[in-house]
Parts: sequence; C-alpha cells; structure tokens
Amino acid sequence: MNGLSRVALAAAAALFGSAAQAAPATGLTVAQVLERSPAKDWRPLDPQNTLLMDLGADGSRQVIIELAPRFAPQHAANIRTLAHEGYWNGLAINRVQDNYVTQWGDPNAETPDKAKPLGKALPKLPAEFSVPLKGLPLVRLRDADGWAAITGFVDGMPVAANPKTGQAWLAHCYGIVGAGRDMARDSSNGTELYTVIGQSPRGLDLNITVVGRVLQGMQHLAALPRGSAEMGFYGPDETRLQIQRVRLLADVAEDERPALEVLRTDSATWPALLDARRVRKEDWFVHSPRHIGLCNATVPVRPRAAAQVERPSK
Amino acid sequence: MNGLSRVALAAAAALFGSAAQAAPATGLTVAQVLERSPAKDWRPLDPQNTLLMDLGADGSRQVIIELAPRFAPQHAANIRTLAHEGYWNGLAINRVQDNYVTQWGDPNAETPDKAKPLGKALPKLPAEFSVPLKGLPLVRLRDADGWAAITGFVDGMPVAANPKTGQAWLAHCYGIVGAGRDMARDSSNGTELYTVIGQSPRGLDLNITVVGRVLQGMQHLAALPRGSAEMGFYGPDETRLQIQRVRLLADVAEDERPALEVLRTDSATWPALLDARRVRKEDWFVHSPRHIGLCNATVPVRPRAAAQVERPSK
Repeated sequence: MNGLSRVALAAAAALFGSAAQAAPATGLTVAQVLERSPAKDWRPLDPQNTLLMDLGADGSRQVIIELAPRFAPQHAANIRTLAHEGYWNGLAINRVQDNYVTQWGDPNAETPDKAKPLGKALPKLPAEFSVPLKGLPLVRLRDADGWAAITGFVDGMPVAANPKTGQAWLAHCYGIVGAGRDMARDSSNGTELYTVIGQSPRGLDLNITVVGRVLQGMQHLAALPRGSAEMGFYGPDETRLQIQRVRLLADVAEDERPALEVLRTDSATWPALLDARRVRKEDWFVHSPRHIGLCNATVPVRPRAAAQVERPSK
Repeated sequence: MNGLSRVALAAAAALFGSAAQAAPATGLTVAQVLERSPAKDWRPLDPQNTLLMDLGADGSRQVIIELAPRFAPQHAANIRTLAHEGYWNGLAINRVQDNYVTQWGDPNAETPDKAKPLGKALPKLPAEFSVPLKGLPLVRLRDADGWAAITGFVDGMPVAANPKTGQAWLAHCYGIVGAGRDMARDSSNGTELYTVIGQSPRGLDLNITVVGRVLQGMQHLAALPRGSAEMGFYGPDETRLQIQRVRLLADVAEDERPALEVLRTDSATWPALLDARRVRKEDWFVHSPRHIGLCNATVPVRPRAAAQVERPSK
C-alpha cells in the first residue's frame, strides 16, 4: 500500500532522463550524466529544419518536428515549402491507430475538386527510402539489433544500415515522422505525414520515406482518440482534430521560437548517457540490461535555459 | 493529392493483422494465415485468469487483461482476490507517462487512514521477477533480440530468458502489465498495476514483477491525457479517470463474458504468422525485414464468432 504508487517505477523513469537518483561510488546515473554535460554538447534548433505544429488554437499543444534533409532532401525541401505557405493550416489529424501511427494532412486529399492546392510545392517526388552508408557521419551503437547489422545515430536521428547493400535509413522508432504513400514507391510528396505512437514498427523500414522525428510534444499526437474506421482512420461521425497551423521555425519571430536544445549525438555526453542506460546506477534498479535498444536510446531535448545556468565550480 | 491518405500505409497495417491484401504466387499474407487457421489453433479466455476493467460507467471502454500465473503465481492469486472483492471499483488511473506507462490503483495508497482496505488480499508478497527456464513450455522465437539470449512465447505471453542463469521472465512489451513497486524488491502486492504504452522499456525486465498482458482495449489506457506531475502522475488540479470496476471473468455471468479467443502460440498457425510478418507478401511492401521483434510479434485476439463461421470447403 504505502509508497507503491508514487515511488513505484520512480528510478525507472530515469530511463527517460527525468528522475535524479543517488549513485553508488562508481558510475553515473542518467541524471548525473546530463547534469555534467558541457554546454557545447548541446545544439539549438535549426530554423530551416524545424516545424512548429500548433494543435491548440491558443498556441498550446505544440508539436516540434525536426526534418532530416540528409536522408530525404527532396521531401524535406517540399515540406519546408508547404509549411512556409501554410499548407497544413486548418487541415486535420486523419488517423490514429493504436500502437502504430498518428497521421495528418488533408482529409479531402482524395477528392480532386476539394483537395487543398499545393502552391509552389511539388505534387510528385522520388522515393527517398535510403541513402549511401559511405560518408554518413554515423555514431555507431555497439548493441545488437535484430533488424539491421549496423545501427547508430546521425544528427540525433536513429539510423540503421546494411553493409552488404551499402545503404542506410532512418529507423521507425517512437516519434519518427514519415511521409505516407500509396501503392507506388514514389507516391509520397510530404503532404500526408505520420508519426509512430507505439512499439517501433521496424518492419516499415525501407518501405517508405522517413522525413524526421518529433523533438517535443509527442503526447499531443499519442494521446488522441483512436479512429474507429479501418486502420484507425476517423469515421464520418468522428470529430477530427484540426491543425491550427504548421510553421517553419525560420518563419517565426526569433523571440517566439521555443528555447530548446538537443543533445549532440556526436558529443562525449552521448556515449556516456548510453552507458548510464546500459548499466543502471539508480538505487531502484536491481538488474542492469547491459544493452540499449536503438529505439530506446532517446535523444534528450531540454529547455535552453538549463544550459545557461552554469553549475558552481566544483 | 489522390490516394495518399487512405491507402498510404494500408498494407502496412497488416503488420497487425487488420488488412487483407492480395498475395503473390508463393507465401501467404498475414490476413491469409489467419483466415486459414483452424479453430483448434485458438483458445477461449480463461475465466480464472482474465480481468475485465470497465473505465466507462456504461460498461464501455473495457480493458481485458490476462494474468500469467505461471510467471507470478502469488501476484496472480492476490490480484484474483482483489478483483473478486471489488478492490479497484471506484479507484483511478493515477499516472500516464508518454512513451512509458499508464498506472492505476488507489490514489490514497500512501495515506494510511485513507487507503482502501485490502480485504482478504495479502498486503505483502515476494518478488516474482523470474522463473526457472527449465520445464517452461517456451515456443522459441529464432530472431535475434539484443536484450536476451533466448526469447519466445508461453501461453501467448512474450518471454525472454538467460540460459546462463537458467531464468526466464515476461518481457516489457507494449501492453504488458506489471505490479508497481517501491525501492524494496518485494514491495509490490498487485494493488498498483501499470501497462506499457510506448516503445517497449525492456530495461525494466528483471527489475519488477510482471503479472500479465492486456488482451484487448489498450487504446483506452494509451490514449489518456498524460499527467503533468513528475513521471506522468496526475497533479492535484488534474482529473483522474475513475475505474468503474474490475471483475474476474469467473465472477461474470457467462452470457455477459466477452466472446473472444486468443491465438495459441503453441499452434501451427503461430509460426506461419511470424513467417508472414518476416517476409511480407502484401502488395504494398517493397522490402521485407526477414526478422520479427519479440515485442512486434503481437498475439492476435479476435471475436469468437469468427471461428464459428466455417469457411466453405475449398
């Protein structure tokens, strides 16, 4: 009875970097690794590759998405244009399928005379399922992954690769953002996007163009009512959540931009953080996995202010 | 843009067995494997090990949970007693942490004079983190898993094992149900339960007692508003969703019991289903993973009526 509810799983939350716990003599907890990280191990949001999606009319329920132009350059460019021109403003969340995806875009996309015009964005793009592994600044993850021979991170994005084909691709982890397509490989243009809201469906890898990941605000997409029609689409009698607006960060006044920073996966803090997740030093844990999964190795995002508060010298 | 929204990801939904697709000359789709499965490959709900949790006052939003007495016999017995005595009736969802867990029980558990009495249930139980691998009717999964040397299924539950220690345990996959604990290993008694609502946090394995899995109704636990307090607990100004009642299926009149059946993981259909997920025969897929993850290998549950509709001979 007493204590079970609050403290239960308490230190376990440190898996996601939210709980500070006392550490034994050796090793560091996740919280300690983050506390000790130098300011240079964090980077600001990239105005040209960050989208702000407002689901609430008052600017609340904001979802922040980072694009991955290194992996899907033509989709990223088209999405930039679409956001710049306000394409998604007033469109809607069309689909929420439990343990799978939340998807948004134009509910009338299939009705030619009702579909929203694309403006300067291109109606057709090539498939961008993978890129050459060679030359990619991949920070390898040493842990085994059943889905791919090589895994790691590039620019904070989870990446898988196959040395036999020489190709690398963004992995379908929780919060990854992809471009919905029809039967044809090249039938996505970035207007219809989805994000993963459950166990990572890695079986989608190499089947669809992945365009980025949600940096913050996943709860606003993951906690939505599931659609009752096939595949989680909303039926005619269900209310779709309207998207208030989606803006490219570059189009937002500097003093209105979210003051966030992202841990660099090419920093010294990143491998230290992974080690702290492999071997748990928080008191609650009685067993350490000595392993981290690609899709469990979430890259931290935090308020930028935290970096500006310098610790006293010690 | 025609077709992008509805059909996008359409066949991909077959990952979860919901979409029928045309198959090429060789191999079967997921839907075809399920259509062709004989009735004997499915089993009914077990009245002594199934809980019905009603979140809606009218019996709507029902969550069906199957207990795993083989892995946590004392917790399962205590939970049976608690359900039989109506312990959870009127209690609440206390915590929803995005990409982690939804947790329920007594919001006043920590306040001795306000905590709900446990009746005939035991206030203290031993930790039941693992069981001997030897003798376990494990249906092995041949696919590599970074977290454990051996994985597979027992009674439809995802299991991991370590041949060096000789121990096996239920894996923290989406929909698994565990018993919250405090700092002491043996501080859970089954009153406070949680389920995984995001990417599987396998780092919790061997750290806590797992008691079963959600068979149906996960969306009612996964789509709830996230709590704003630390670790996703609801704060004082947030409304907790009340649990209307939790009943043991054996205590429910037979004609009120959900008419569901679960695919037997010791059937011939199960490996065929896994093969259909490893090598995709649905038209939408252009690449097959040739792999299935332990936590992606969801065990199907379907209306029992489906089995009673015999296919015409063909």
